[in-house]
Amino acid sequence: MPNDVLDRLRRELGASVSTDPAALRAVREDRSGLISPATAIAVVHAGAVDDVQATLRLASETGTPVVPRGAGTGLAGGGVASEGAIVLDVSRMNRILEIDEVNELAVVEPGVLNGDLNDAVRPRGLWFAPDPASRAISSIGGNIATNAGGLLCAKYGVTREAVLGLAVVLADGRLLRTGHRTVKGVTGYDLTALFTGSEGTLGVIVEATVRLRPITPGEPVTLAAAFTDVEAAAAACAGVAAARVRPAILELIDPAGVARVAEYLGPEALAGTPPESLAAGETFVLAQADGEGATADAERIAAVFTAAGGRVTRSTDAATGERLLAIRRSMHAALASRGQVLIEDVAVPRSRLPEMFRVIEQIGARHGLEIPTLAHAGDGNLHPNFVFEGDEVPARVWTAADELFRAAMSLGGTLTGEHGVGLLKRRWMRDELGDAQWDLQRQLKRVFDPAGILNPAVMFEPVPPTAAATSPVAPGATGAAPEHGAAG
Amino acid sequence: MPNDVLDRLRRELGASVSTDPAALRAVREDRSGLISPATAIAVVHAGAVDDVQATLRLASETGTPVVPRGAGTGLAGGGVASEGAIVLDVSRMNRILEIDEVNELAVVEPGVLNGDLNDAVRPRGLWFAPDPASRAISSIGGNIATNAGGLLCAKYGVTREAVLGLAVVLADGRLLRTGHRTVKGVTGYDLTALFTGSEGTLGVIVEATVRLRPITPGEPVTLAAAFTDVEAAAAACAGVAAARVRPAILELIDPAGVARVAEYLGPEALAGTPPESLAAGETFVLAQADGEGATADAERIAAVFTAAGGRVTRSTDAATGERLLAIRRSMHAALASRGQVLIEDVAVPRSRLPEMFRVIEQIGARHGLEIPTLAHAGDGNLHPNFVFEGDEVPARVWTAADELFRAAMSLGGTLTGEHGVGLLKRRWMRDELGDAQWDLQRQLKRVFDPAGILNPAVMFEPVPPTAAATSPVAPGATGAAPEHGAAG
Repeated sequence: MPNDVLDRLRRELGASVSTDPAALRAVREDRSGLISPATAIAVVHAGAVDDVQATLRLASETGTPVVPRGAGTGLAGGGVASEGAIVLDVSRMNRILEIDEVNELAVVEPGVLNGDLNDAVRPRGLWFAPDPASRAISSIGGNIATNAGGLLCAKYGVTREAVLGLAVVLADGRLLRTGHRTVKGVTGYDLTALFTGSEGTLGVIVEATVRLRPITPGEPVTLAAAFTDVEAAAAACAGVAAARVRPAILELIDPAGVARVAEYLGPEALAGTPPESLAAGETFVLAQADGEGATADAERIAAVFTAAGGRVTRSTDAATGERLLAIRRSMHAALASRGQVLIEDVAVPRSRLPEMFRVIEQIGARHGLEIPTLAHAGDGNLHPNFVFEGDEVPARVWTAADELFRAAMSLGGTLTGEHGVGLLKRRWMRDELGDAQWDLQRQLKRVFDPAGILNPAVMFEPVPPTAAATSPVAPGATGAAPEHGAAG
Repeated sequence: MPNDVLDRLRRELGASVSTDPAALRAVREDRSGLISPATAIAVVHAGAVDDVQATLRLASETGTPVVPRGAGTGLAGGGVASEGAIVLDVSRMNRILEIDEVNELAVVEPGVLNGDLNDAVRPRGLWFAPDPASRAISSIGGNIATNAGGLLCAKYGVTREAVLGLAVVLADGRLLRTGHRTVKGVTGYDLTALFTGSEGTLGVIVEATVRLRPITPGEPVTLAAAFTDVEAAAAACAGVAAARVRPAILELIDPAGVARVAEYLGPEALAGTPPESLAAGETFVLAQADGEGATADAERIAAVFTAAGGRVTRSTDAATGERLLAIRRSMHAALASRGQVLIEDVAVPRSRLPEMFRVIEQIGARHGLEIPTLAHAGDGNLHPNFVFEGDEVPARVWTAADELFRAAMSLGGTLTGEHGVGLLKRRWMRDELGDAQWDLQRQLKRVFDPAGILNPAVMFEPVPPTAAATSPVAPGATGAAPEHGAAG
């Protein structure tokens, strides 16, 4: 059967079909650290919509699972090989089809990198606001498939708000167009929003019409603050919103994270960088205000930080601002230099950030784990990190992660703010949604994918209760317990 | 059967159930001018979630249609009586349950008026951005059910972007909670967005968690401009976006509309109002810039208008700004003073506004109709108005409206930008969506409403081809051809 499928794939798609071991190996992983134990039967490197349609027609006829894949930078195992599947790689579909300055939109193929679109529209005074930290290397199709977040969401919205319309190839190979080239449009249900964040389980995005924004005028003002207490720092971040200021960026690194960054950059790098004398055990908070009111906003943010016990440094020159941002940006590299990294992605209402930090500390203490944590504090999205040795996530890390997810949910939050469910978090999806919604969502999937061929291993796959305590991937879905390799 | 349903309703819901002729009459209409020919079997004035659940359980058991209804200010006949239905009026569920300043959100019952929520949060420095022109009288549940637009959408988004989560009673009476209290959250499909704009066909919204924004600082600056050519005026509006300015408000009234307003307000009112000497045959454009950069933005907008041949008046004082806005606001009253008004609601990409105005002129000429038109020019949403005598929309008005819808669609737009499909536009929905999407959307409805009891007359009802040319309401759905009464 796989051989028959392969023969037909090769007949229809020729050189776009690869069974090269290196290609098959590459699509077993993304940037989550997960290496799928499963091997795809082939990778199709689609170059055009026709290729995607041909692949899905063939997959439908033969009952072959299809895993859509973009740039491979996902953080939840949403686009990695599952057993017996065709991995449908759309990263070569990377043309910007149109930039429409008057209607402030672009039409792009799914493989266009977020950063490349921004480079193309910047000279015209426009930008594409969704800003996952991976923007230089992640594709817009993947941003949409995961409803990616980023640093700017509290002020500039999540990816969903930047998508006007989509072209999607359905499971049976038909091409569907949703949405409009207008900001408004309310004819029927909002399928554009339904596809956004659906992780390749409802169709394959082959084109997107996305909103662009005029570049925010003026120079941003960057602030850094050091707090001796992480909960006080988190409360100060929540206090910024309460003071009716909406900064573009509001990031927090907890003491464990600061220690790893200090070690990585070296004491002189940090000593030369405000806030002066950022000491062991302190929490680092970075805020950036932008737009015409940037200076006034920054002063109000500084006042909130100072009142909460923070030592504040203002930077009005771009170079200092860059140095401050570099501390934030080096966090992942600092962790990755010490071992394998599992990045979690919970979100809580920002008023609950102090409690969530307390819980993280308690969970770490209970399991003897250090959990360096970075937060997009403006929107309550936390990335607690686990660093470990070896290829496999230790059982106690998963136990700690499980406790993290439950804590976030009990605080009114979610187990994934911006990375998606993928393979890594499907075990918890039902807990968050509840049985009724979980069942409705499965029925929605069936409307689009009655035969269950579209990325069937992610989101919904049931996990036998006995496996739940030790592995995030159901053995039945990908063949064996997962390995965990190097994070990107 | 209806008597049996009524008896059971009364037993379970007591005094909340009304069959009073005045109550039954009131729910036959909304603000669209449509008076449904159908009579409901009862109106349930739900006071709490329990009442909604009891009504839907009973309706499910007995196969009785349910039409959810809010403040009754809809403009597409989305919440009016259909034959044999229970009208489920949630307008008494009007409590603001929570205002959370730190997380910038409110939790409201569906009957809370948009304006009342704004009054409640303003003293705390917050506002709820969705701003349909009906905000003083329309409910938030209805705003969400129609994904309502308004004047501020190009800058501040449509209703969907302001909804974080919902509580919805399903067809069988179960209570479902969707979404989060966080800006981010990507666990599973976005059912919150799916319910937004679903016009009561998937469930009954009984609670909403909505985003609030910090009040935009500073005084807005208002500009008015007069253009001798409507297409030049429309092109100038498109040019504002091309100049990388995003005004809060950008409204256009065409010469027919200006004439009706001048007549209504009296020549002295208009003569005393800038732009000086707004003459017969001229087009009126109103722009408002807000925020810290308001003055600079207004200058850039003025430059675009002047370059396009507009005569511009700036107003920096609030009183003059108010006088200019009053011209815009009096448009509907001016039309209603002359007869019945049918308000259409097409949208096109804003670069196509000049073409759309040309088409409107051609359609008017072809059918001997005056079509005074108001446009939210910032987002390409046009309201061409038909004024007529008597209780019924004349056939040539529907023919002209049909041509309008098709023109908007052929320009890359939509037949409804913000009012919804309801009863009035279901005949065209399939044309816009295409067969494949229309069919998928019907299947989505079936997932939530397998027995087809939820507002079954709106959106999807098929129309016999013979009836299509003269009536927007399928005779089968509501019993007879529609009457058209006074617009609100």
